[in-house]
Amino acid sequence: MPSAVDAFVEKNEKRFLDELFEFLRIPSISTLPEHKQDVARAARFAASKLSEAGLEHVEIIETAKHPLVYADWLHATGKPTVICYGHFDVQPPDPLELWKSPPFEPTVRDGNIYARGACDDKGQMYMHVKAIQALRAVNGGKLPLNVKFLLEGEEEVGGESISEYVPAHKEKLKADVALVSDTELFADGVPTLCVGLRGLVYTEIEAQGPARDLHSGMYGGAAPNAIYGLIELLSEAKDAAGHILIPGMYDDVVPPDKTEMESWQKLPFSESEFLQHEVGASSLTGEPEQTVLARLWARPTFEVHGIVGGFTGAGAKTVIPARGVAKVSMRLVPDQKPEKVIAAYRQWVQDNTPEGIRCSVRVLSASPAISVNPHHPAIDTAAKAYSDVMGRPTVFIRSGGSIPIVGEFAKHLGIPTVLMGFGLPDDGLHSPNEKYRIANYFLGIRTVAHFLDEYGKSA
Amino acid sequence: MPSAVDAFVEKNEKRFLDELFEFLRIPSISTLPEHKQDVARAARFAASKLSEAGLEHVEIIETAKHPLVYADWLHATGKPTVICYGHFDVQPPDPLELWKSPPFEPTVRDGNIYARGACDDKGQMYMHVKAIQALRAVNGGKLPLNVKFLLEGEEEVGGESISEYVPAHKEKLKADVALVSDTELFADGVPTLCVGLRGLVYTEIEAQGPARDLHSGMYGGAAPNAIYGLIELLSEAKDAAGHILIPGMYDDVVPPDKTEMESWQKLPFSESEFLQHEVGASSLTGEPEQTVLARLWARPTFEVHGIVGGFTGAGAKTVIPARGVAKVSMRLVPDQKPEKVIAAYRQWVQDNTPEGIRCSVRVLSASPAISVNPHHPAIDTAAKAYSDVMGRPTVFIRSGGSIPIVGEFAKHLGIPTVLMGFGLPDDGLHSPNEKYRIANYFLGIRTVAHFLDEYGKSA
Repeated sequence: MPSAVDAFVEKNEKRFLDELFEFLRIPSISTLPEHKQDVARAARFAASKLSEAGLEHVEIIETAKHPLVYADWLHATGKPTVICYGHFDVQPPDPLELWKSPPFEPTVRDGNIYARGACDDKGQMYMHVKAIQALRAVNGGKLPLNVKFLLEGEEEVGGESISEYVPAHKEKLKADVALVSDTELFADGVPTLCVGLRGLVYTEIEAQGPARDLHSGMYGGAAPNAIYGLIELLSEAKDAAGHILIPGMYDDVVPPDKTEMESWQKLPFSESEFLQHEVGASSLTGEPEQTVLARLWARPTFEVHGIVGGFTGAGAKTVIPARGVAKVSMRLVPDQKPEKVIAAYRQWVQDNTPEGIRCSVRVLSASPAISVNPHHPAIDTAAKAYSDVMGRPTVFIRSGGSIPIVGEFAKHLGIPTVLMGFGLPDDGLHSPNEKYRIANYFLGIRTVAHFLDEYGKSA
Repeated sequence: MPSAVDAFVEKNEKRFLDELFEFLRIPSISTLPEHKQDVARAARFAASKLSEAGLEHVEIIETAKHPLVYADWLHATGKPTVICYGHFDVQPPDPLELWKSPPFEPTVRDGNIYARGACDDKGQMYMHVKAIQALRAVNGGKLPLNVKFLLEGEEEVGGESISEYVPAHKEKLKADVALVSDTELFADGVPTLCVGLRGLVYTEIEAQGPARDLHSGMYGGAAPNAIYGLIELLSEAKDAAGHILIPGMYDDVVPPDKTEMESWQKLPFSESEFLQHEVGASSLTGEPEQTVLARLWARPTFEVHGIVGGFTGAGAKTVIPARGVAKVSMRLVPDQKPEKVIAAYRQWVQDNTPEGIRCSVRVLSASPAISVNPHHPAIDTAAKAYSDVMGRPTVFIRSGGSIPIVGEFAKHLGIPTVLMGFGLPDDGLHSPNEKYRIANYFLGIRTVAHFLDEYGKSA
């Protein structure tokens, strides 16, 4: 069976690439209002290609912001159902001057497609569509299992519409497992399933000192400084070694089990390469008693994403700032509860705000960590399919980031997600010159088809 | 003699006010390139009024930026020479919507002139010109002493040109004392001489962490955060009570002597009114063992004027910032040496920069504190003249700010400055609805004339 799919994919390589290029030419930048019609156009493109691949009930669902696309094929009686998720919106391409070829004119160099969305996520999402097409083509128009598609155009701007849609359509979206290709291989050539994602509590702290900016000559020494107050507060969040000092922060943290830790030890990971090629700082930081991968995947964080206040132009201005704002997040790990973390954080802000300053906290988002059971039959089958196609054992990793839809599927549909991605660590998502390796595009189509085939057979 | 001047001033009130209004209508905003011609126009206005007042050698001196104006009257053989300084440039009026009347259309309300520059410094500077005119008018065209004028149009943008001009023209500017009216009365009705100014070291610290902004999901926990590094560093600058922790910071600080401290105790100062009406915060801060006036006038400060880095837009973006910048200054008191403070500060930055972060320090300006000997004959005469005209004892105060020209005169001409100002604490310099009380304008003309007359007689 894989060989028939392989042959079909090989025969259609040019066409599959041309179609993806057409998709990539649509500048579906969800955050820019002037591209609203382009996001809609990308939705129509995806819908038409789902129809072409033989999916039924293809539907463009209007929302308050950008449309969702739904489709299904439900004729494999007695077989499991997989819901495929992906997104057809992209990040803005800025800074434009750093692109070697235009972001919305896909260009091939060294076996890679350079374009915004090539990897994140049009290229990966489109693999699912082509895998279905290939499976039907070699199987007399039938699929080995039931399939649903739910695609969105708001992933890069918070995914509000899909997070409202899922809980409101549980029956329609009912499935045994979800399939998402929006992640990457741990390293080139290594089949990789992601089985854990950190959660996130994202907040804004606003500090107010004097009623208005004051002259630092006239008032300096006696008037509180909102920025300095914020600095004093935030500096209390961690000790010099990177341990978070917010009381109770580690209370519910469940460390990874021995097997998982051991498997991480075997991953092809070099701390010095990670420092040099990815981080580019003078040294790494964080809890010294934890491995780097544990710090990234299994430990909560406290991060200041941005701060602004007072005079920030060129030259010198001697103000005591009245106001300052910082964006602060905490990544969560199993089994931390967002509500409990938020309460502890609010209390900590209150207890540590310096005299003369008033701080207010706004919570912008909150989601718990996600763990996927690696022994779930779908995960098991995915791992085997991955290994079969790529000829190496599949590794199980976690990701330090969050993929909100995985949480929505777990919470509202009660299903795990197979996070089977084919990006590479240097694909430059969200950056200029985003790329996706052509070989990985076809590898993904074949692996996804193989997984679906095997999962259909196994059940 | 004062009565003759008083009579002359009273007779010419309308004319003196009309002239000032004409001066105030020139939008001589030195920081905005589109107002360059207006600054030049203000210089020509001042020059022509100096001529009208009987000054000689009136000169508009072109510089790299905005012109200076020089003039003199040197026919009082054997008498001392006073150099009068003032500035004819003004701050931008923004935010315009907060002005009750247009900033460059002087408007009288409740006995005040509302206009940008009314107090800072056109209104105060112009008092000197009118005082000279009055003295000559009642003295048969003669003056009781020699007078030089040096006016600038760059005070609000750093005063670079005058600080180059003074050391290059020591002989031309030679004088016994300088007179500057760019300060305020300690309280309404209280004749006030300022005899001390803090110095200032103004710097910028740039922190660099990772080579580029990183995704906080992928890297959070192990990658250094430039903003957090900057926060950790800056938080080490002061203890919770406001004492500066930079080693050696207090080594050369000379506390005010007993007499001066006692005189401060007698000033009409209410800490709670200062907090409520001027600062507007929940409490004052700073070294608890120092009085508020000592904190403002006689203690060094460490202030963060602004900070920026990372994501500061609306909503949430999960970056680990690669870079952050803070504007940091230290106010200096006698006898701190700027070079020594800068060296200690640089060393402290180096010693306290957290792992993974690189910090660079740029010094934008550095000037020492200034003390004027209150027993200098000119100061003594000024205090008496002030008391005579206002009918209350003159108080000696310091200011927590810096007036760079006072330092230039001390350093290059070796002379003290009489800081005799007539503004009020609520005049709103640099703010919308800047005002200057009409009565104080005439009071200033009379007091300055009286001081010059007495100083001429005394020597």
